[in-house]
Amino acid sequence: MKSKTPKESQAILTEIVLPNDTNTLGNLMGGRLLHWMDIASAISATRHCGRIVVTASVNNVSFNQPIRLGEIVTLQAKVSRAFTSSMEVYIDVWVENNMTGEKKKCNEAIYTFVAVDQLGHAINVPSLVPESEEERARYDSALRRRQLSLILAGKMKPSDATELKALFTEG
Amino acid sequence: MKSKTPKESQAILTEIVLPNDTNTLGNLMGGRLLHWMDIASAISATRHCGRIVVTASVNNVSFNQPIRLGEIVTLQAKVSRAFTSSMEVYIDVWVENNMTGEKKKCNEAIYTFVAVDQLGHAINVPSLVPESEEERARYDSALRRRQLSLILAGKMKPSDATELKALFTEG
Amino acid sequence: MKSKTPKESQAILTEIVLPNDTNTLGNLMGGRLLHWMDIASAISATRHCGRIVVTASVNNVSFNQPIRLGEIVTLQAKVSRAFTSSMEVYIDVWVENNMTGEKKKCNEAIYTFVAVDQLGHAINVPSLVPESEEERARYDSALRRRQLSLILAGKMKPSDATELKALFTEG
Amino acid sequence: MKSKTPKESQAILTEIVLPNDTNTLGNLMGGRLLHWMDIASAISATRHCGRIVVTASVNNVSFNQPIRLGEIVTLQAKVSRAFTSSMEVYIDVWVENNMTGEKKKCNEAIYTFVAVDQLGHAINVPSLVPESEEERARYDSALRRRQLSLILAGKMKPSDATELKALFTEG
Amino acid sequence: MKSKTPKESQAILTEIVLPNDTNTLGNLMGGRLLHWMDIASAISATRHCGRIVVTASVNNVSFNQPIRLGEIVTLQAKVSRAFTSSMEVYIDVWVENNMTGEKKKCNEAIYTFVAVDQLGHAINVPSLVPESEEERARYDSALRRRQLSLILAGKMKPSDATELKALFTEG
Amino acid sequence: MKSKTPKESQAILTEIVLPNDTNTLGNLMGGRLLHWMDIASAISATRHCGRIVVTASVNNVSFNQPIRLGEIVTLQAKVSRAFTSSMEVYIDVWVENNMTGEKKKCNEAIYTFVAVDQLGHAINVPSLVPESEEERARYDSALRRRQLSLILAGKMKPSDATELKALFTEG
Repeated sequence: MKSKTPKESQAILTEIVLPNDTNTLGNLMGGRLLHWMDIASAISATRHCGRIVVTASVNNVSFNQPIRLGEIVTLQAKVSRAFTSSMEVYIDVWVENNMTGEKKKCNEAIYTFVAVDQLGHAINVPSLVPESEEERARYDSALRRRQLSLILAGKMKPSDATELKALFTEG
Repeated sequence: MKSKTPKESQAILTEIVLPNDTNTLGNLMGGRLLHWMDIASAISATRHCGRIVVTASVNNVSFNQPIRLGEIVTLQAKVSRAFTSSMEVYIDVWVENNMTGEKKKCNEAIYTFVAVDQLGHAINVPSLVPESEEERARYDSALRRRQLSLILAGKMKPSDATELKALFTEG
Repeated sequence: MKSKTPKESQAILTEIVLPNDTNTLGNLMGGRLLHWMDIASAISATRHCGRIVVTASVNNVSFNQPIRLGEIVTLQAKVSRAFTSSMEVYIDVWVENNMTGEKKKCNEAIYTFVAVDQLGHAINVPSLVPESEEERARYDSALRRRQLSLILAGKMKPSDATELKALFTEG
Repeated sequence: MKSKTPKESQAILTEIVLPNDTNTLGNLMGGRLLHWMDIASAISATRHCGRIVVTASVNNVSFNQPIRLGEIVTLQAKVSRAFTSSMEVYIDVWVENNMTGEKKKCNEAIYTFVAVDQLGHAINVPSLVPESEEERARYDSALRRRQLSLILAGKMKPSDATELKALFTEG
Repeated sequence: MKSKTPKESQAILTEIVLPNDTNTLGNLMGGRLLHWMDIASAISATRHCGRIVVTASVNNVSFNQPIRLGEIVTLQAKVSRAFTSSMEVYIDVWVENNMTGEKKKCNEAIYTFVAVDQLGHAINVPSLVPESEEERARYDSALRRRQLSLILAGKMKPSDATELKALFTEG
Repeated sequence: MKSKTPKESQAILTEIVLPNDTNTLGNLMGGRLLHWMDIASAISATRHCGRIVVTASVNNVSFNQPIRLGEIVTLQAKVSRAFTSSMEVYIDVWVENNMTGEKKKCNEAIYTFVAVDQLGHAINVPSLVPESEEERARYDSALRRRQLSLILAGKMKPSDATELKALFTEG
């Protein structure tokens, strides 16, 4: 199976915040942004593996600042690392000032997808070869996130998570 | 007011066709695609003028082939010409084969927007300077489409539509 | 196949503009009206041919004036002309003053549908026999619009569009 | 305040059952039909009184037969009787066979609305003058339904509901 | 078939009123609440019989007071009586003051469902054994409501509705 | 400000998976479940603090098994720990077998909310006093998750995260 670069799986989703996307303060609802992230990252994972994909997990997503009614939101999703049958997808979110066009980074999120066949069984995916510096940094940290996930799920002992452990004992 | 290029107003919207986007044949509904086109082109027009925009008209949109459940659809919108307070936006739509990643052009559409202030009154927009060959061709044909619109709306006599008339008398 | 009149395919859709139909100015979004038009005209085309129909194209739609939150919108769709397997549907849109009940015409739109079988293949539809003066005028102009569509799609030379050409050379 | 006829408040809503309107059997969900009924009857009540209206109650609604994916549904709503500040609206629902165009009555429902001012306080509405035989029958039975509502709400003693009582003692 | 208690079929649905649930006064739309009631009561009926259920009718629903944007709404649905293949479900609705947490009863509604097999044919359901005083009162009144439904549908003569008749002749 | 128990903030949301909630495999979409989780946890946070709340972050959410069309899903959300102006909310998700009524735990998720005033500024919230053993375990681990969040956001050095560090050096 031929490796792929993050650029090959890039998916862009641009949305404008409309009244039915807002909460009672007139800002974009967290749940709506999570839904858009799910679509953008599912498209990215599909582009990486060319198969049906299902959401496996959502990692730490922070909502740092309110996004207001009428603002334009851009989501960019790229696969950050591929494991046997799963893919970690990194989503960067920007909001732009409609008057000046200036874009401000407002969110990062990480979703994990599994590739499945028509019966829902996991199947193998191509490996990922990062190119830019940022892509390589995200590729490396993906392993630590995976160890953390396995520990939290009780499938790995903290003492075996060598990558993650180093962060604390050497930090 | 500083001119802008089509690239500065480009907006990309990627969507995956889900069950609630489909008609009774399991294909993407026309009405849903029209809605996505409206969002993509409204974002593009907003990026061109930095103001609130409202849809003024929709020009000929063709649905050449069915788009199926689960397929990934990409919409790319760019302003093709600016008039006093209105902007014509060209939308290109591709559908891709999820297995091979091959993209196929499946639609073109043209929407027109008007820039307005908070009270809904029309205001001036920057002019457009096309760059690529395709952008120049669309810029030129925009004038003929505008004449056609004015004729259809009874606001111009066919004999005054010199650009359009030439098409038939010389064609 | 027995001919039908426009009245036999008439479809009426009445809607009230609710908060989640509005843009950031509190007016009906263009995309939502396009969606309602798609439903009304699809029902009209279905009534004409008694088969599954799919949207083939959307012709010039103008949004002449804002429609406000809380206003009642009435769409009336009728088949204006039938070709081999396609039907042109004319949609008239009125908005009414809730206090006085006075109705004001605010939009006209033209959609084209194709009748298909369960596999999506085009099938023949009954011809249309216009009755009223307005129906006859729309029936006649449908041929010019069809020629224009074929020219824009590069499937007809302007010089062969005799009906359309006459408009400019005699106009 | 000038009286009105049922015809003046008539509202028609035509819908086609799409995949996202269906339950797990592929039939129209009850909740979706209730929502369409609410819109059609709210428009009818608004047309009768020319004011903001809010749903006050829903009377006996029966779902006699399943409505299937792809079928066309027509709702016709007309005010059946007006009281001081409330209006009873009768909704008739038909489903049609797409092939033959034959319409079959599939539902009747009764909704009650109250007219309010901008602050939500109840205000007076015009009285209703029924014209057809069916309209007169519904006008008469509206009083019995109102008595039944008041009894069920504990605001009237059964012995005072003379109209309703007669139904049982003479029936 | 083993009997069940109302508690075994209890379903709770908590919702927060968001902008796209509201009417032009900023209050929860009746149609949206009817839709939530349909979901809560369908879940309750499914829990009682363990089969597919379809909405058969909606009995008197009153909207006594406006529910405002941002307020939390709690729906509690429980089967109140089971007949051969149908189940009456009682829905109680509370709205709470977000500041104080105080809950206020704002609605009661009654829906009826029929249990069906995969082909949509009615099938038998377990009987219901009420436990609390309120459950017993609702169980008893369910018979009167059923008689009333049959009379309104023309399937029973008022003189045969002994339970209901007693209400008027003895009341 | 008076402390509260987790039970006081409990919110239950029961949903049935309908066709428009599903992906192309006929299973519940991840994005839809994330949206339901956002609603359930926002209600829980509102009940804890009695103020407007906004989503601050979403922690590790795992989708362990597909949830199918027609299945009943129950979400239970309770505040697990309160910090100065933020609340961590734990959401447990069960899916039940419609035939047997048997419930199976299928998801856990953690959302964090911040309490704000009408201008969107953070305000203090009551502290939480856990009662059950599970509540106490979640309360304790909330501190480690908070340290992890601060490290990932670059706002704390790993060496200062004493609670978290112990996990790796002693584990």
